Amino acid sequence: MAETARRIVLASRPVGEPKPEDFRLEETAVPTPGPGEVLLRTRFLSLDPYMRANTDRYAVGDVVLGHPGWQTHAISNGNGLRKLDPKLAPISTALGVLGMPGMTAYAGLLEIGKPQPNETVVVSAASGAVGSIVGQIARIKGARAVGIAGGDKKCRYVKEELGFDDCVDHRAHDFPDRLKAACPKGIDVYFENVGGPVFEAVLPLFNYFARMPLCGLIAQYNATALPEGPNRVPQLMRNILTKRLTIRGFIVLDFAAKQADFLRDMSTWLREGKIKYREDIAEGIENAPRAFMGLLRGENFGKQLVRVS
Amino acid sequence: MAETARRIVLASRPVGEPKPEDFRLEETAVPTPGPGEVLLRTRFLSLDPYMRANTDRYAVGDVVLGHPGWQTHAISNGNGLRKLDPKLAPISTALGVLGMPGMTAYAGLLEIGKPQPNETVVVSAASGAVGSIVGQIARIKGARAVGIAGGDKKCRYVKEELGFDDCVDHRAHDFPDRLKAACPKGIDVYFENVGGPVFEAVLPLFNYFARMPLCGLIAQYNATALPEGPNRVPQLMRNILTKRLTIRGFIVLDFAAKQADFLRDMSTWLREGKIKYREDIAEGIENAPRAFMGLLRGENFGKQLVRVS
Repeated sequence: MAETARRIVLASRPVGEPKPEDFRLEETAVPTPGPGEVLLRTRFLSLDPYMRANTDRYAVGDVVLGHPGWQTHAISNGNGLRKLDPKLAPISTALGVLGMPGMTAYAGLLEIGKPQPNETVVVSAASGAVGSIVGQIARIKGARAVGIAGGDKKCRYVKEELGFDDCVDHRAHDFPDRLKAACPKGIDVYFENVGGPVFEAVLPLFNYFARMPLCGLIAQYNATALPEGPNRVPQLMRNILTKRLTIRGFIVLDFAAKQADFLRDMSTWLREGKIKYREDIAEGIENAPRAFMGLLRGENFGKQLVRVS
Repeated sequence: MAETARRIVLASRPVGEPKPEDFRLEETAVPTPGPGEVLLRTRFLSLDPYMRANTDRYAVGDVVLGHPGWQTHAISNGNGLRKLDPKLAPISTALGVLGMPGMTAYAGLLEIGKPQPNETVVVSAASGAVGSIVGQIARIKGARAVGIAGGDKKCRYVKEELGFDDCVDHRAHDFPDRLKAACPKGIDVYFENVGGPVFEAVLPLFNYFARMPLCGLIAQYNATALPEGPNRVPQLMRNILTKRLTIRGFIVLDFAAKQADFLRDMSTWLREGKIKYREDIAEGIENAPRAFMGLLRGENFGKQLVRVS
């Protein structure tokens, strides 16, 4: 029974928005683990070692978290893998609410944003894997949570399902006015996931001493040139100075020391029903490029996963 | 003996660079203090109560620090004044190294910049009241100090008198290259006093996790319009995100809680000869507007004061 391994490779580095031709599906024989190695089989673009294991650190059938890339099978020496317990939570949550996106929301909001009771926390991409958690943690901490999302359906979900105090559609022609109306006391924390025009609408609403954890800039990842002028850097700097703003970029690895706190708090909140999450699952590794391109256009609705096996 | 009080008032709000016509010198009778009030006479655009005092909190001849504006005499109820001891230090230092500029340098560098031994600290307006102190404190903390100043004379002063490791002339045609050469290990802390093209040269040199206390934007205070495009905000945001920079605006009042630490440390450093300072003194209140306009063009050399009486 010759099982075939499949993987998605980058055929060419995307210029601007990624196109289907930038990706290529390759097929190879399933590799054989050497001494001290383990063969991984991908389930959710998360991983599970399957069929055989040639190291005593893992048993056949263990479910682990790792970074083997977009492929159905991979060989690993076992380093950098984290064993998951499928009895505690669905394994896909290790890629979402209990994984990197959840930890990003938790650390960025609490370590940089530092929301205080009754402050206003605004988060962009509010229906997404990170944004949805940011707003819910903000509410747990006693702050008012205002989301920004694309379209009426996502905004309703953010308010009605996730329990944000408000959510504003950034596609509305009068988005800046709507955002202002949703934040009558100004903005104390803005968790930035997108950049671009959404940020421009947020900037004038900042209160004194507001904090901006900068986590992502999805609106500008595909840009091939800087936008037209005028150059608004001096205006931004003047705002930072006169309002004494803090803007700080981060990635989740910067807060590795908070991992245990995160797992403890987030598990508790999930168990208590204080945090909800949503997954958007594409089927089959061959659909990974399409799902990825859709993600950059905001077409996903919840944490984007690919079910591989 | 009818003494005359003189004051400089704003004749019109400056548009762009302030002009002499924006200021007006007015003469009035010296006011008489009522119950609980004190008459102040200005010495260095610092203050001293003189001639008579109608409150028991101050005696005639006390030297105090306050904010009475550009005038030779003022009435005060005594609130917001701080008594100075002329025996401890020249009274003009209460407006410089032992006053707001010194405290601005101290708090901004240590509380936001947090320089570590062997890190590189860059400061603009390095020969000025704040910048000169920033670099000297950076060296006390074991960091490498690189100044940015306008012209050869100021740069020589920063290196030879203040002991910075290097100083770069921002007027040089190849300023960005010179700055890069002066910071072979990149920049860990940039204490921002100026904005504009100097900041643009600093941005690509930031190391991962660099900090930027934003204290002033002298290069853009007189701007009447935003500069031409392209809009470089997305570029700045990308740098903040990928390098995990922290940019934080502040004014000295935000760190009032550190005032006692500052006075203790700075007095010690002055006594030990570890901190030097320089004053640029204009003579007569009538020259305050000219000195102010020169300050915005970088024509001063050291802390700008006006000797009033």
